[in-house]
Amino acid sequence: MRERDLVDAHLSAWIAALPSSTLYAPMAYLLGLPAKRVRPVLTVMSCELFGGAATNVLDEAVGIELFHNFTLMHDDIMDASPLRRGQPTVHAKWDVNTAILSGDAMLVKAYQIMGSDPLVLSTFNRYALEVCEGQQRDMEFEERTSVTLAEYKEMIRSKTAVLLGCALRIGACKAKASEADQERIGAFGEDLGLAFQLRDDLLDAFGDSTVTGKQQGGDLRNGKKTWLMIRALERSAEVGDERLLAELGKPVDRREVPLMLQVLRELGVQQEAEEEVNRLESSAFAALDAIAISDVRKEPLRALVRALQQRSR
Amino acid sequence: MRERDLVDAHLSAWIAALPSSTLYAPMAYLLGLPAKRVRPVLTVMSCELFGGAATNVLDEAVGIELFHNFTLMHDDIMDASPLRRGQPTVHAKWDVNTAILSGDAMLVKAYQIMGSDPLVLSTFNRYALEVCEGQQRDMEFEERTSVTLAEYKEMIRSKTAVLLGCALRIGACKAKASEADQERIGAFGEDLGLAFQLRDDLLDAFGDSTVTGKQQGGDLRNGKKTWLMIRALERSAEVGDERLLAELGKPVDRREVPLMLQVLRELGVQQEAEEEVNRLESSAFAALDAIAISDVRKEPLRALVRALQQRSR
Repeated sequence: MRERDLVDAHLSAWIAALPSSTLYAPMAYLLGLPAKRVRPVLTVMSCELFGGAATNVLDEAVGIELFHNFTLMHDDIMDASPLRRGQPTVHAKWDVNTAILSGDAMLVKAYQIMGSDPLVLSTFNRYALEVCEGQQRDMEFEERTSVTLAEYKEMIRSKTAVLLGCALRIGACKAKASEADQERIGAFGEDLGLAFQLRDDLLDAFGDSTVTGKQQGGDLRNGKKTWLMIRALERSAEVGDERLLAELGKPVDRREVPLMLQVLRELGVQQEAEEEVNRLESSAFAALDAIAISDVRKEPLRALVRALQQRSR
Repeated sequence: MRERDLVDAHLSAWIAALPSSTLYAPMAYLLGLPAKRVRPVLTVMSCELFGGAATNVLDEAVGIELFHNFTLMHDDIMDASPLRRGQPTVHAKWDVNTAILSGDAMLVKAYQIMGSDPLVLSTFNRYALEVCEGQQRDMEFEERTSVTLAEYKEMIRSKTAVLLGCALRIGACKAKASEADQERIGAFGEDLGLAFQLRDDLLDAFGDSTVTGKQQGGDLRNGKKTWLMIRALERSAEVGDERLLAELGKPVDRREVPLMLQVLRELGVQQEAEEEVNRLESSAFAALDAIAISDVRKEPLRALVRALQQRSR
């Protein structure tokens, strides 16, 4: 993909220019792991959609990817995750202190880039704090016994979806799109982000573990409050089905994932989730349709969404 | 002090306007602990020195204090410090994850403030990363067996002193001072910051523990690589005095602080450090003198330095 190649080249050059010290090595490492680069590609596509030149927005595209990776580096500490993209996380490879400080420096680096254009900076500022608020909610939910679907959706919106919206808004902003169009492309991104996360939850539960590279149903086994789990518990209560609660009452290593998956299917939760993904994607496309630009210019974004729809991991 | 009162009022209003969630409560807590507010007061004084209005720079003064407190929140995690200003640190009172995330949000908040003026932002950007680099060096030094005085000084310059310089530069920038004067007031701040840190090291060793509230010689006992320790080890090697190395060879709780202090005095290290503080303060005043503004306008900054010189804790 041309946009992807542009982003990769610019990001590689950025990484190569980093000083060689312990502060920067973890940045280079994390940014160097294989990744889809969805956010910076969205920034480039959005800029081009509105008639801007890709070369004019590559710095900001890298800035968005830096911010995203700053959140990954710190979230991985908070979640005590040993692996990221199949490789050791920064705090596992170095140590927690290095991951805290290198993440901080990555956030500063992101701001150095975003700060060169006041309009970009103001857009970025609107959403950077929301991402922190989303992570805060996510951590709180882990402590709570009950979370509603609306709360979960709001958490995912702020933690994950707004950054996709922000990536697109910044591309639009650099191309001097109208405020209304910036809102539309931002809404497209947020719906896409929600769909993206829900699809991840579905893949975790029902995906082929030989393709996803993750243990099937890992989130379910761990009792993670995903859309699927929250909705399944709601449905179980409605129909008086106690099988899921019984599994969650067992120690984690005794929980029977195949049975949990069967309950989700029988209660119609898998189907509901798939319908919700479709609804979100339709809503995303409707926002894109509302932008008065020829369809051919929208094709790269549509193709990207299709690729994400068809992904199996 | 009038400038201090202005800063306190503005900061209190800022804290009071924070949303009430777990993301912001630690910010309000840390910012609410008793503190000297040296950095924001410097910002206000610098702005007024160059003819600007204090009210025009109070947001930026709060922004500097936010950034400073972000570094404290994260540094306290990295140093595993249980206490800050005599109270539990954020990670001790809440937990490490909350302190990581709330610190991140505080950095974003600082940038939201600094971003409203491109010139301020560009000054802030120049120094924010240096502070991270300084903390990185500080952590590295703890792992190394030997650090030179020049390396130590460079670490303190980036970790501590540049932020004082930055606070002053931002005040000058808001008052539209010339580039040359921004450089001068920045140099004043950096020398002041170095003197400030060295005075802290001296107080830790030779201060009255009933006044400082800290165990006398805590840094020495822990073998911390301060200016005093580095210079004392250099001098010990020069004259073949093995008493300090012998103490450092013992378990921490067996080290005799009174003996270590006596060695520092006998080797002339205490006196050298006091001379170095004086030299740095003279250098700071020389930078201030070079600014072509009437002495009466410089008096608030001079009075602040005198107060810092006379502090006993």
